[in-house]
Amino acid sequence: MRMGEGVEWSLHCLLTLGWLESDEPVPTAKLAAVFELPPAYLNKRLQALVRAGVLSSTPGAHGGFRLARSPEKITVMEVVAAIEGAEYAFRCTEIRQRGAGKGRPQDFQRQCVITTAMRKAELAWRRELASHTLADLLAAAPGVAAERTRDWFACVD
Amino acid sequence: MRMGEGVEWSLHCLLTLGWLESDEPVPTAKLAAVFELPPAYLNKRLQALVRAGVLSSTPGAHGGFRLARSPEKITVMEVVAAIEGAEYAFRCTEIRQRGAGKGRPQDFQRQCVITTAMRKAELAWRRELASHTLADLLAAAPGVAAERTRDWFACVD
Repeated sequence: MRMGEGVEWSLHCLLTLGWLESDEPVPTAKLAAVFELPPAYLNKRLQALVRAGVLSSTPGAHGGFRLARSPEKITVMEVVAAIEGAEYAFRCTEIRQRGAGKGRPQDFQRQCVITTAMRKAELAWRRELASHTLADLLAAAPGVAAERTRDWFACVD
Repeated sequence: MRMGEGVEWSLHCLLTLGWLESDEPVPTAKLAAVFELPPAYLNKRLQALVRAGVLSSTPGAHGGFRLARSPEKITVMEVVAAIEGAEYAFRCTEIRQRGAGKGRPQDFQRQCVITTAMRKAELAWRRELASHTLADLLAAAPGVAAERTRDWFACVD
């Protein structure tokens, strides 16, 4: 099971926007250049964050992305759900109702015990991701990372 | 992010073997028939459980699979790791060291704050999966499922 690279890309872009604290929208091309990412693919991920209400976008030649909310109000869980989808990783296909189980629907009204165990684990994972905000990540990151990002943007501007 | 169907298949086969409590190995063809699964694909998953020490296999015309340990000693986590691999779902590719971050390796000795948050969440998920044993699943499943499985095997034998 593997999470797509879009989660790493998105969270690093959010940290970057958090460090810049810019009133001006930051263009995709610049965010892509910070990490040497392909701009079109990155843009697709950032648009998903716009749909989730995490980023706001401004179209046009001087357009780009800004945080739509303060870093305290953006959780890692929201970012993961925006990029990876909100569905559970374990998807029960009810194989228990096939073959030997066939034709007795009344026996399958309760959720399968396997699904119950998998859901509990995914909820523990989600709870943990929901407990981390962008503000927490900004506070935990080394100061030098924030400085380096601001310096880099000042140079390329 | 999606877990492969092999996890559902494997856990249902383990429940089936747990219910049968058979001293004889159960052939893949029969396990596949219980859930109408493709035998060759199922066999590949069950072989992964053999490599993980969860099942033991007996080759030959009367061969098949048995639980290698008592259900109390088989955790859902082991099954997930055997099928999906033991790697973390979030794989950091260190994009922070590219572009703006390039050339200052001394700044990256500490794990990235994003990776730390993602690891914590995955450990919560793993802990939860490790807390469920096959014995727990057998105990939580409705009695009718065990009976139906035993009846079905008695009929096809």
